[in-house]
Amino acid sequence: MKHPGFWKILVVATCTALLGCLQAGELQGHISIVLLGATGDLARKYLWQGLFQLYLDEAGKGYRFSFHGAALMAPTQGQQLIDKTLETLSCPQGMAATHCTELKGQFLQLSQYRQLKTAEDYQALSRDIEAHVQQEGLREIGRIFYFSVPPFAYADIARHINSSGRPGPGTWLRVVLEKPFGHDHGSAQQLATELGSFFQEEEMYRVDHYLGKQAVAQILPFRDQNRKAFDHLWSRHHVERVEIIMKETVDAEGRTSFYEEYGVIRDVLQNHLTEILTLVAMELPHNASDPGAKLRHKLQVFRALRGLRRSSAVVGQYQAYSEQVRRELQKPGDFQSLTPTFAGVLVHIDNLRWEGVPFLLVSGKALDERVGYVRVLFRNQAYCAQSEKRWATGQSQCLPRQVIFYIGHGDLGHPAVLVSRNLPRPRLPSDSWKEVKAPPELHLFGRPLSDFYTYRPVMERDAYSVLISHIFHGRKDSFITTENLLASWRFWTPLLDSLAREAPRHYLGGAESGHLLDFELRGSQLSFAQQQLEQLVPRPGAAPMPSEFRVLNATYRESPLILSWSAELIAKLASDIEAAATRAVQRFGRFHLALSGGSSPVALFQQLSLRHFTFPWAHTHLWLVDERCVPPTDPESNFQGLQAHLLQHIHVPYFNIHPMPVHRHQRLCAEEDQGAQHYAQEIAAQVANSTFDLVLLGMGTDGHTASLFPQSPAGLDGEQMVVLTTSPTEPRQRMSLSLPLINRARKVAVLVIGRMKHEVTMLVSRVGHEPKKWPISGVLPTSGQLVWYMDYEAFLG
Amino acid sequence: MKHPGFWKILVVATCTALLGCLQAGELQGHISIVLLGATGDLARKYLWQGLFQLYLDEAGKGYRFSFHGAALMAPTQGQQLIDKTLETLSCPQGMAATHCTELKGQFLQLSQYRQLKTAEDYQALSRDIEAHVQQEGLREIGRIFYFSVPPFAYADIARHINSSGRPGPGTWLRVVLEKPFGHDHGSAQQLATELGSFFQEEEMYRVDHYLGKQAVAQILPFRDQNRKAFDHLWSRHHVERVEIIMKETVDAEGRTSFYEEYGVIRDVLQNHLTEILTLVAMELPHNASDPGAKLRHKLQVFRALRGLRRSSAVVGQYQAYSEQVRRELQKPGDFQSLTPTFAGVLVHIDNLRWEGVPFLLVSGKALDERVGYVRVLFRNQAYCAQSEKRWATGQSQCLPRQVIFYIGHGDLGHPAVLVSRNLPRPRLPSDSWKEVKAPPELHLFGRPLSDFYTYRPVMERDAYSVLISHIFHGRKDSFITTENLLASWRFWTPLLDSLAREAPRHYLGGAESGHLLDFELRGSQLSFAQQQLEQLVPRPGAAPMPSEFRVLNATYRESPLILSWSAELIAKLASDIEAAATRAVQRFGRFHLALSGGSSPVALFQQLSLRHFTFPWAHTHLWLVDERCVPPTDPESNFQGLQAHLLQHIHVPYFNIHPMPVHRHQRLCAEEDQGAQHYAQEIAAQVANSTFDLVLLGMGTDGHTASLFPQSPAGLDGEQMVVLTTSPTEPRQRMSLSLPLINRARKVAVLVIGRMKHEVTMLVSRVGHEPKKWPISGVLPTSGQLVWYMDYEAFLG
Repeated sequence: MKHPGFWKILVVATCTALLGCLQAGELQGHISIVLLGATGDLARKYLWQGLFQLYLDEAGKGYRFSFHGAALMAPTQGQQLIDKTLETLSCPQGMAATHCTELKGQFLQLSQYRQLKTAEDYQALSRDIEAHVQQEGLREIGRIFYFSVPPFAYADIARHINSSGRPGPGTWLRVVLEKPFGHDHGSAQQLATELGSFFQEEEMYRVDHYLGKQAVAQILPFRDQNRKAFDHLWSRHHVERVEIIMKETVDAEGRTSFYEEYGVIRDVLQNHLTEILTLVAMELPHNASDPGAKLRHKLQVFRALRGLRRSSAVVGQYQAYSEQVRRELQKPGDFQSLTPTFAGVLVHIDNLRWEGVPFLLVSGKALDERVGYVRVLFRNQAYCAQSEKRWATGQSQCLPRQVIFYIGHGDLGHPAVLVSRNLPRPRLPSDSWKEVKAPPELHLFGRPLSDFYTYRPVMERDAYSVLISHIFHGRKDSFITTENLLASWRFWTPLLDSLAREAPRHYLGGAESGHLLDFELRGSQLSFAQQQLEQLVPRPGAAPMPSEFRVLNATYRESPLILSWSAELIAKLASDIEAAATRAVQRFGRFHLALSGGSSPVALFQQLSLRHFTFPWAHTHLWLVDERCVPPTDPESNFQGLQAHLLQHIHVPYFNIHPMPVHRHQRLCAEEDQGAQHYAQEIAAQVANSTFDLVLLGMGTDGHTASLFPQSPAGLDGEQMVVLTTSPTEPRQRMSLSLPLINRARKVAVLVIGRMKHEVTMLVSRVGHEPKKWPISGVLPTSGQLVWYMDYEAFLG
Repeated sequence: MKHPGFWKILVVATCTALLGCLQAGELQGHISIVLLGATGDLARKYLWQGLFQLYLDEAGKGYRFSFHGAALMAPTQGQQLIDKTLETLSCPQGMAATHCTELKGQFLQLSQYRQLKTAEDYQALSRDIEAHVQQEGLREIGRIFYFSVPPFAYADIARHINSSGRPGPGTWLRVVLEKPFGHDHGSAQQLATELGSFFQEEEMYRVDHYLGKQAVAQILPFRDQNRKAFDHLWSRHHVERVEIIMKETVDAEGRTSFYEEYGVIRDVLQNHLTEILTLVAMELPHNASDPGAKLRHKLQVFRALRGLRRSSAVVGQYQAYSEQVRRELQKPGDFQSLTPTFAGVLVHIDNLRWEGVPFLLVSGKALDERVGYVRVLFRNQAYCAQSEKRWATGQSQCLPRQVIFYIGHGDLGHPAVLVSRNLPRPRLPSDSWKEVKAPPELHLFGRPLSDFYTYRPVMERDAYSVLISHIFHGRKDSFITTENLLASWRFWTPLLDSLAREAPRHYLGGAESGHLLDFELRGSQLSFAQQQLEQLVPRPGAAPMPSEFRVLNATYRESPLILSWSAELIAKLASDIEAAATRAVQRFGRFHLALSGGSSPVALFQQLSLRHFTFPWAHTHLWLVDERCVPPTDPESNFQGLQAHLLQHIHVPYFNIHPMPVHRHQRLCAEEDQGAQHYAQEIAAQVANSTFDLVLLGMGTDGHTASLFPQSPAGLDGEQMVVLTTSPTEPRQRMSLSLPLINRARKVAVLVIGRMKHEVTMLVSRVGHEPKKWPISGVLPTSGQLVWYMDYEAFLG
């Protein structure tokens, strides 16, 4: 038996490369299209019209179709509903009324309602199709099952199709799936696994209808056809920012049962805006019409995305939302929803092309206008010697330079591609896009429309009719593969998790929101530009929001204790370190900082790396508190963590960096290589009085600190400044600063984060000076200061 | 005898702190003001009026004045000319005509012409002043000599004043000097030394009349008074760029004898625009009214300026200029001037506050408008959620945010301070600046004037009258100190030198120039945005311009030779290295680059550091070809040069950097420390087959390369990969890759630059394989490629 994909490939070739050669009327074969959920909203609004358009486009090329509108309801009732929908179908503009009536009549004849409920219903459908094909003397090409049903119904339907709906050998099966494709990475993975047990990857067409919108579908072809003029501009060297925007005026009323589960990020950003992002950002495939290359390059973008943090987003909720939810979902009167209806997210792509360029993804309901667009704004890198009155559109490099894929609605009212006239004149395929003159009064993106080369589609097409055509032609690259889907969820899920307990900012909705939703970029963080005008009252018994807490000051083991939620704690520690650095550099000309490895400091390193410009890095010496005896490039190496999260983002002079010499003479921590002694000598030679300005420590669940472990005497006292020690966990060999050296420091900060540390935190709070049992209890600077930095989870459990 | 400064300080205190306590008419003493060049242009246009204003301001406070208008011409003729000038003096707006006539009459009585030519003339002047003071029963306070004469006359006059013009003990002497203060650093230094032999630093008042312009004089007070609201915005984190602009519509006709010597950079940028730059950029003194702190902070700005290169500037010349020069200076008909009449210069300030922010200094003659301003443009770091139609001035962070010190002329027509309304509302001293309503139709800097808080002076004052008042009050911080002057010339002279042979771009002048003078920033380089429309024809026999040459390809010692002017050569080499790096990373995953030290590679390092983003630094290993046996932080260290010019600008992982271990166990290149062997081991361990991808060499005037010297056998052959060698010059001890190791490389590039190398270039071209005499002749990669990169000066002499 031939692989099911084999025929598909042949068919695709027939329908694309050979299309021009075929005579109208030449017989191609028969295709059955089964629309599941044929009486639903989506089907009535878009899908039947899309199928009719497919019929108009393809029937003349020799294809024979049958359209099966399926649902659970009884046949008579179903047929009535479908007949009603089909009556409303419209023909393309310009088609003569009589011709339209004739074609609609044909289409109606081919379209029938079927009840599809039981296994027998599916078997009957299959038998009927086969009988029909045989009776007409046709060859079956394939079957399309379009799932316009809620996700909970997927599994049953899929099982039935797989067991009784598959066409015979030499034909193809295509199942079309509509979002939501899961709720987070875990559920998406589960759904994908389930579907994967019934269908092969190549049989599944996951729809993101934005990929059928004409301006979106034009992004890659535009980049490809204007490669020479635009590709070198399409990078961090020239692009100031990219905005990917989808604003709605409607709210969620009537749909809150769906919306309350999903919210704007899952509804719009995770899918539509992320897909657009990949089209804008991907490396252009050498051959842009190679769907495989396109999908690979999309995945490369996902791999280069910088992880989102809580501070990467701002979220809002229109004021009436919670009341709508209470009403529609019968929630108690004090219920406050935390579901965002507005989100702005800052995405960074850490690759050569895009590093440092902000991609802003914004969407919301109940906003002041309905509009969607992608805006690539180029930097102004020019000075214009003439008065701005004399700047000529198309010549002055000082006027804004931008490329806009205008998805639709808004002031323009139709899809468009806009390119500033001081950029090269773009090429667009003239059979599908035409250049138009702008209405002189219209201003968009800060400029009169006459400043742009403006193109609009020769014929506007609905996204679904475009996608149905792509399904028919097997153009898989217009759909979401499983890998793509999971990559997207992997990217979004941490942000969604971190937002789960956060109260969004309330906004009035419409134009009334004023500037309340405007937000600002600061490095890789976003924040609202204006102070919030109202304060949320948390519902009784609700989990407290971190933002309701301030950093608390207390004591722990008789030393100062700084207590906060972890993000704020890290920010506070980073500030304190910077302040110490600034003071030390002012007083002594240099700052000696000894850092611990492990996972807790990673967030700190990231915070410090944001202080690229203010921190006196050029005068800072970086030392390690401890190191694992692994090769220097091993991912387990503490130094590697420091390199990845801090050093590569800042400029510290080479000789100010002091990795521990765990790797000498191609050996790891051999006693005879005297690495510890060498490090001690280096410290003695460079650090006045061997007194570090600041030592950052952590605390293990067994009470260890640095690499000084309980019940292992090395480094707890004595003369040695640097010692080799043995860890109870792998890699066992370690190098560490000794307690006596640590205690010479001017300041020691101990960072303790996470619920896992709660128990040891409580235990250590009660022990005295017992370094042999609890090495951390031996940390007590002789003349310096000890400060504990703990988050609530470590402190309160 | 009291120090001459003593009285000044007392007097200043009297005139400032106590001014409010004095009764009008209370007697202060007598001041003589000698205006040298009293019949000249400047005197007639501004200085007499300034002196009259001084009289109006101060005479009522009890000061007695005598004004001596001096020149070389005979008394009668001089007095006539002066009388004519004095007749034109005007009183402040609003003064009653009779009162004005009265005051003018008094001033005329105090103002007399004197011929000052000989030593006797000066002695007589002194005697007359003393007699007058005695006769009136007054106390002499001080004397001001205002040099409104050409610089060549300075020395004579200064000598006369010093020997016979000084007032007696307990009084002060102030000499006021007008630019030009030299032509470059050398001549400015000479002039300063000469003047320093006659006057003390505190006696000299060098005028930059821009410091008297009201908007310029307001820059520091604005920053000081709005410290809280603006100082944190005033940095690289918020400022996109700073423009310091002085555009003129007039050309140089009638003044070409001066202008041809100086050009726009010496005439405007070196002084006026640079002074403004320091006011905008300096760290705010803790006490802004402390003149000493102000001068120190100004000098700190000079120290932080990044050196200018040829590519930091674009220069132009209005088309009629050469013809004007030919006519006015009787030059031959084919004479083409190279003097720029337009310049745009990109200045970077490498300190924490400003690193990376472009400061654009632009000035020119025969432009489309007369206007001067300083514009601080802040970055747009916001996204505004509403349609731009709804952006409210003063609230939307998406509208441009800028602070403008409008020096005068232009569309506004008066000095002003403009602050965008979406910035904090500034405070300005209400006695001297008033907020005004903007004419609604006026657009400036891309916005209607109503977008700005707009302030204008309560009373407009001419710069010279402001400065004459400052001289009288001893406010030295409004003048250019010798240290300040020389720092500025030190900054500008290298650019002026590098432009000396360059042909500026021709422009038509006025609005006709179109966009021809628009220029673009690319990293730290500037270039005109449009292709030049006309080509300069070099005058016969003129030195050829580098831009007339392309990179030539030839051979040298039977290997490829790339020949060009040095800047283009370095650019080509940098490109070639990047291409090699990209290839190597693609093929092997890493790129091993061995670099030589010394001065020639510095320009290359700078070029490479500009390739921050495109070069695969994360996969590049950097090795040294040779090193001097000096401590690692010694400025002589090759590694230090690499650090300063390359490493600190790029991100190379720590373990990819391989300094030579010349400093081990606190000793330098001790044989027993086996540094060379260790380096060889490191190479063997990390570089596959010990084959570097690229080795960059230089060639010494004695034919040495790397640190392999003639007549010294180490490293010329044998098994050793890394050797200790002895240089004929200090520091004598070196470490070097050996010839056999170098010759294993995939590519060896030899960079030879400068006229100094011409002789050895010629000699080496004729020798065979004689490494013992000419180590460079031993460079011949076994299977790799050798390429010579030479500039014309090295090759042609």
